[in-house]
Amino acid sequence: MPEHELAFTGIAEAGALLRAGKVSSVELTEAAIAQAERLQPTLNAFITETHEQARDAARRADADFAAGIDRGPLQGIPVALKDLCATKGVRTTAGSAVLADWVPDFDATVVRKLAEGGAVSLGKLNLHEFAYGVTSANEHFGVVRNPWDTERIPGGSSGGSGSAVAAGICAGAIGSDTGGSIRIPAALCGITGLMPTYGRVSRAGVVPLSWSLDHVGPLTRSVEDAALFLNAIAGFDPADGSSLDEPWFDAAEGIGAPVEGLRVGVVRQQFELADDDVRQAADGALKELESLGMRLHEVELPLLMQARALPILGIEAAAYHAEWLRARPEDYSDEVRTLLLWGATFSGVDYVNALRVRREFTEQVEAAMREVDVLVMPTCPSVASRITEIESGVARFAGLTAPWDHTGQPVLSVPCGFGDGGMPVGLSFAGRPFEEALIGRAGHAYQQATDWHLQRPAMAVSS
Amino acid sequence: MPEHELAFTGIAEAGALLRAGKVSSVELTEAAIAQAERLQPTLNAFITETHEQARDAARRADADFAAGIDRGPLQGIPVALKDLCATKGVRTTAGSAVLADWVPDFDATVVRKLAEGGAVSLGKLNLHEFAYGVTSANEHFGVVRNPWDTERIPGGSSGGSGSAVAAGICAGAIGSDTGGSIRIPAALCGITGLMPTYGRVSRAGVVPLSWSLDHVGPLTRSVEDAALFLNAIAGFDPADGSSLDEPWFDAAEGIGAPVEGLRVGVVRQQFELADDDVRQAADGALKELESLGMRLHEVELPLLMQARALPILGIEAAAYHAEWLRARPEDYSDEVRTLLLWGATFSGVDYVNALRVRREFTEQVEAAMREVDVLVMPTCPSVASRITEIESGVARFAGLTAPWDHTGQPVLSVPCGFGDGGMPVGLSFAGRPFEEALIGRAGHAYQQATDWHLQRPAMAVSS
Repeated sequence: MPEHELAFTGIAEAGALLRAGKVSSVELTEAAIAQAERLQPTLNAFITETHEQARDAARRADADFAAGIDRGPLQGIPVALKDLCATKGVRTTAGSAVLADWVPDFDATVVRKLAEGGAVSLGKLNLHEFAYGVTSANEHFGVVRNPWDTERIPGGSSGGSGSAVAAGICAGAIGSDTGGSIRIPAALCGITGLMPTYGRVSRAGVVPLSWSLDHVGPLTRSVEDAALFLNAIAGFDPADGSSLDEPWFDAAEGIGAPVEGLRVGVVRQQFELADDDVRQAADGALKELESLGMRLHEVELPLLMQARALPILGIEAAAYHAEWLRARPEDYSDEVRTLLLWGATFSGVDYVNALRVRREFTEQVEAAMREVDVLVMPTCPSVASRITEIESGVARFAGLTAPWDHTGQPVLSVPCGFGDGGMPVGLSFAGRPFEEALIGRAGHAYQQATDWHLQRPAMAVSS
Repeated sequence: MPEHELAFTGIAEAGALLRAGKVSSVELTEAAIAQAERLQPTLNAFITETHEQARDAARRADADFAAGIDRGPLQGIPVALKDLCATKGVRTTAGSAVLADWVPDFDATVVRKLAEGGAVSLGKLNLHEFAYGVTSANEHFGVVRNPWDTERIPGGSSGGSGSAVAAGICAGAIGSDTGGSIRIPAALCGITGLMPTYGRVSRAGVVPLSWSLDHVGPLTRSVEDAALFLNAIAGFDPADGSSLDEPWFDAAEGIGAPVEGLRVGVVRQQFELADDDVRQAADGALKELESLGMRLHEVELPLLMQARALPILGIEAAAYHAEWLRARPEDYSDEVRTLLLWGATFSGVDYVNALRVRREFTEQVEAAMREVDVLVMPTCPSVASRITEIESGVARFAGLTAPWDHTGQPVLSVPCGFGDGGMPVGLSFAGRPFEEALIGRAGHAYQQATDWHLQRPAMAVSS
């Protein structure tokens, strides 16, 4: 197998090869490192690479396989971590100057769970400063590039996660989503992103942006891989006050299950907010869903436009950053500092009113989802814009994603075609809380019927 | 039976008499009306009396009994409603000038449920203006008096509910509790008050004070009656966004169950904040609980003092009243207007920080309650103060109750003795969410072993 094909082996497939003895974790890891060494100088997906630790972890995984020890589907698989996950002994910057020299003495719960599952981490991925900001550049650690067109943004805030997974540097990566930061880079980089149900994945040790909106979850190349990755990091964690003590579940249980008769709610308003090229791709996906036997229904959500403009994220971010912002304002970029100061201008009454709209919108979605099983919509209104276009920021890209951070429900983004400039387009499936398996069922069936998720950026497969 | 004894017949006892044909609802209701006619001129417990409707309802209840129709334990029983519950065709003032002429065209869910259960409503009970304010007087509808000493306050904000139940005008009354407004009048009037789990009782049609803190619940003379009353008004209501869709439960299932070995967490900090007379009565209650076989444990809650000073109530009240306050400020008393303006001064960041403390405190209580079954503490730090003492306000009285509105857990207050001036003292049992039956079990056992709840104010039993 050529090295770049090994690099593009996904979690499910690599797991089968590892267990059949057809490939070793060391081989997978060396292919990943080779891919990183070749592409990182261009993409800048990583802030910190930990290749030697990765090699050690790969050897341990191979020793475990040899000894008959199986820690689960992530064992031996190359992954990477958005650099707001605390890593013991490895600098954790959150993309900021404030934490540029922070070396935690503990692992975030998701990092510990990945290690316990035998995953091989290649390092810490670039992101927007503190996962905030509306433009694409990270002033402190440089701009991340999209492997489909290196003059374009990968989307944010988990831009390094999107870029590295799309480029075949790793099979999956941790991202976090507060207004769309998993789903946007997944869509713009042509990969799969899964924002789990709020409270499903621990945030302990993950630098917060907004406590009531932050979700930690995976970016991978397939729905099946996203489900396997989620299984490895999910679960109740008393160290996270928002963690939910729910019974264990299998996010992958819907993979391969039939989808005939599944009721799909089309959020037409989101289609109308999208550019023509995006809408065309998403309309094509609707036809595909119908041809798979799913039944389409139109869904109206009158509060959708209000839900995308709520100040909750800004206010909560201002609360988290208040002390640093007073003590060392010069360590923030102008842009993030301005956003945080903007968040601080809201009153308690504004916040209460926003929470009320949030609840009403959530009730509207709940009511709509009594009639349908999943909702579908374009993930972003546009394909990835050029790095030089300042208006290409998160603000516009997050318009279609942000409402869904407020409801606590899981959303899965999958590639559904290509738009202007040959850039990928993403389609989102939103489920009821705790129904990751159901949206995975729909998304996997869609991926089986199409091959958008198997397309590779040219730079990543040429040698 | 002398009329005042009939007036003091509780829900459980009257229900047995009604079903044995030993008394009619009309007799019970006439006794209640007689008591009201005698005492209302002094106590001012009611804003609006609906005696003719009550007589009609009593006749219907008797007809139902005669026809073998039994709508449950409230059928034929005289009750009354805090005047912030909307009543179709009957003015609903919320104790305010703003709503002084409001005649709703619908019933609050709890009002409808009481009617469906065959209860007989005597009218609408006095309260603090919009259930807010720290002094005892209602500027618009006059001061309510405590039947134990008419120169003293009944506590608030459900002062009319406390006064009317303590005086034997009705067997039970609806109250609402945002910072202590059920438990404080229960304690100061020597009766039983039950704040249910947040979300257990619908608030649809109840004028809000603070959406994340408001609880609707009963004031009665015994724990058993409180449980029967709660059963009649509890349950999921889609019209209230905070209503919880939980399986049906029986709040009375613990009545009469054994209490040996029950683990009681003593919140010593709350004892230390109480006056000597209150502490003495509460200490006596602890001895009684031990002699019943309960096991006492000391409980430490480091955030308790912070939890009593959170601005959440003030901010949420300011949000609810913002439009009226701008449009007709003159319709508010100086005191309530000032409180609302104070609430409006807080920032969104303040509110977020308060929510964080609230969550941490809730986690502290949850952790403590993994080791104990119930918590006990004095309900209020003092007995009812004189109406002329301006410092006798809710602010001081709510100091021990307000923390528990933030945690969402149920709390039951029962009389546990008398303090200075021969005024009643209340003891609170706090339970885990949804464990009303367990605190009822402890509270009922305590009432069986003592007779504090059987004491009657002299004015209410003399004729």
